[in-house]
Amino acid sequence: MKMKGFFKVQTPQQLYQRINRFKPLSTETVFLEESLHRVLSEDVISPANLPEFPRSTVDGFALKAKDTYGASEKNPVLLQIVAEIQMGQISEITIKDGEAVKIATGGMVPNGADAVEMVEYTEWVDGQTIHAFKTLSPLENVIQAGEDIRAGEIVLKKGCLLRSQELGLLAAIGRTEVRVFLRPKVGIISSGDEIVPVEQTPSSGEVRDINRHTIASMVKETGGVPLFLGIAKDRFDDLREKMEWGLRESDMVVITGGSSVGTLDLVSEVIQSFSKTEILVHGLSIRPGKPTLLAEIEGKPFLGLPGHPVSAMVIFHLFGKPILKILSGISNKTESTIRLRAKASRNIPSIAGREDYVRVKLEEKDGILWAHPIFGKSGTIFHLVQADGLMKIGIDEEGLEEGEEGEVILI
Amino acid sequence: MKMKGFFKVQTPQQLYQRINRFKPLSTETVFLEESLHRVLSEDVISPANLPEFPRSTVDGFALKAKDTYGASEKNPVLLQIVAEIQMGQISEITIKDGEAVKIATGGMVPNGADAVEMVEYTEWVDGQTIHAFKTLSPLENVIQAGEDIRAGEIVLKKGCLLRSQELGLLAAIGRTEVRVFLRPKVGIISSGDEIVPVEQTPSSGEVRDINRHTIASMVKETGGVPLFLGIAKDRFDDLREKMEWGLRESDMVVITGGSSVGTLDLVSEVIQSFSKTEILVHGLSIRPGKPTLLAEIEGKPFLGLPGHPVSAMVIFHLFGKPILKILSGISNKTESTIRLRAKASRNIPSIAGREDYVRVKLEEKDGILWAHPIFGKSGTIFHLVQADGLMKIGIDEEGLEEGEEGEVILI
Repeated sequence: MKMKGFFKVQTPQQLYQRINRFKPLSTETVFLEESLHRVLSEDVISPANLPEFPRSTVDGFALKAKDTYGASEKNPVLLQIVAEIQMGQISEITIKDGEAVKIATGGMVPNGADAVEMVEYTEWVDGQTIHAFKTLSPLENVIQAGEDIRAGEIVLKKGCLLRSQELGLLAAIGRTEVRVFLRPKVGIISSGDEIVPVEQTPSSGEVRDINRHTIASMVKETGGVPLFLGIAKDRFDDLREKMEWGLRESDMVVITGGSSVGTLDLVSEVIQSFSKTEILVHGLSIRPGKPTLLAEIEGKPFLGLPGHPVSAMVIFHLFGKPILKILSGISNKTESTIRLRAKASRNIPSIAGREDYVRVKLEEKDGILWAHPIFGKSGTIFHLVQADGLMKIGIDEEGLEEGEEGEVILI
Repeated sequence: MKMKGFFKVQTPQQLYQRINRFKPLSTETVFLEESLHRVLSEDVISPANLPEFPRSTVDGFALKAKDTYGASEKNPVLLQIVAEIQMGQISEITIKDGEAVKIATGGMVPNGADAVEMVEYTEWVDGQTIHAFKTLSPLENVIQAGEDIRAGEIVLKKGCLLRSQELGLLAAIGRTEVRVFLRPKVGIISSGDEIVPVEQTPSSGEVRDINRHTIASMVKETGGVPLFLGIAKDRFDDLREKMEWGLRESDMVVITGGSSVGTLDLVSEVIQSFSKTEILVHGLSIRPGKPTLLAEIEGKPFLGLPGHPVSAMVIFHLFGKPILKILSGISNKTESTIRLRAKASRNIPSIAGREDYVRVKLEEKDGILWAHPIFGKSGTIFHLVQADGLMKIGIDEEGLEEGEEGEVILI
């Protein structure tokens, strides 16, 4: 009977392959002001050139570049100032040879002018004339119409996560509304006979519901909307009822609490009682978080997490967040492809054949980023509070030696 | 008249020193559910031990460690199973020599037991007896009461930014509400005669108000609340009126648009018309963003940013965000002290005596992070959309050579 109740573990890599079956949710239109950190569900095309007119990039004098040829500190050229361009105004004047107009940064460069001499390289001779001290090339200090963006060009692609600068671009081309993917709703169930709500004082043997709060927070951080479905007792009917509710009201269901083999078996029994269930992963070669369960139920992702708060957080961070990103329709994942690397400040043992995630405190010293492992058998939430990140020990590695570099995921 | 209108520039380092005069805002109480990414304004003390009872960290059998001494794969010890501890229940039994009780992960370890043999190292002999194959030390696979947190201990300090794990810890100790600093309200004014609202089609010479959207987004990202005060014409009375409104209704005021020397002078005149104004920085040795203005007006920070959208974003990122963090009361700034480093994929020229921030696209290749500079004289918002970060060229450096490592700030 040794090794009883064990399941065939799979690698994290296999899990990542299996989540690709999920698809982005449907879409909605939101105001530009409400679109920060949402994900575009349309290609955005610019209706006009940007800039719409040639603009100066400096404060100075718009002129013909050829009039400055040969100009130098010792040998300035003389130019006649025929006008001043006011900001926000159309310059209807046309510059002739030997003429220049005063212009501010962003001002419209007038017809005939093809460059702008910076004010620093000029000197007034009298109220009508200046000396210019620097030879300019054509188009120097000028942005041409359409130089940034051409009318009809796709400026942002479907799947783009909207940051501050994307909102700026949308504003620049006059978009007051955009079409985005819906934010995924995530139903969260805490399971376990020993779990009591936070407001309740646990009696001996009971513990408060930590996972509800950590998982809901991580859902929010990933742009999702958490929906708490309650604490389920370790009974088929209670779990089944909350699962039904979750599948009806949300786009993904997460259960925490299947840390022991018995609970995991019960959760597995419940999800298999739904007609359209496919179990994708049942046990992972990872620590912490071995008893992880991934399934597709009625077309929606289901994630069964260990009840241990640290394990649940690590697994949701590594796998729950990527699933949410798929549902959110994100295609540009720069943030998740840039890996932070740090050196282990002491030996970190591990076992090959399993990915380990060790809590670390980070410290920069003389330009080197050091990761101090936080050990402790209990692996409690307090250790996660002290940690800045999780250091990954790859599945083929037998730990890291002091000074060896590894990948760190900020948490 | 050469160099006319120039102001005495200061270094970014000097600006950072000057923002330390600002103080955190007052406080409010929020529900645990609403406290994510808020900043604690109290030290949080645990009212009880955590765990409150000795718990098993594995599925297995609680027993006296001494009964397993000498046990091995070939030479198991025999133990009598006298009970099974249900999750969430108090174990009232007391273990005697040679006895063990079945226990799940998280279960309460009964009196008399001081270790838990993992189920993987056991084998049922009959319904009442097991073989245990592994020698245990006392306390192996057991968390003692108070091992994580002792009653009366400070578990989270004032100034702590609340992440998912801190919410988990607060849940664990039964906190349903916490005292936090108020979120800073930031009044935003876009200035310039050429600026029109996004919904308006600009005529020649006019441009849409990009900065309102980029700055408001960056305020939100830093935990602040943006308040848009409108587009001000380049006139003293209009600027003054919007400034008054901003100082009345918000905790910090930001004006964008002082890109040209003339506008900057006007903004400077307006802020000096308030009785309690101290100009702290007027011009920065930085590119982009030289025409930056920092002041304290009626005890509140005021930041005057260039009108150029890229410059405004860079400066707000580098200086506006740190000021907001001070107002928010954040004391642990791990995120901002961890510097991402990347190698320049080609030469990036710069001038000593000025900090340069060059837009870069990041790419990881064979474990090395490369920064590809995005050049272009215009430095438009479209370039920021293509960028993942800003590469810093220090004030004493004359650029970076291909392959040389530098610091990158993600944007």
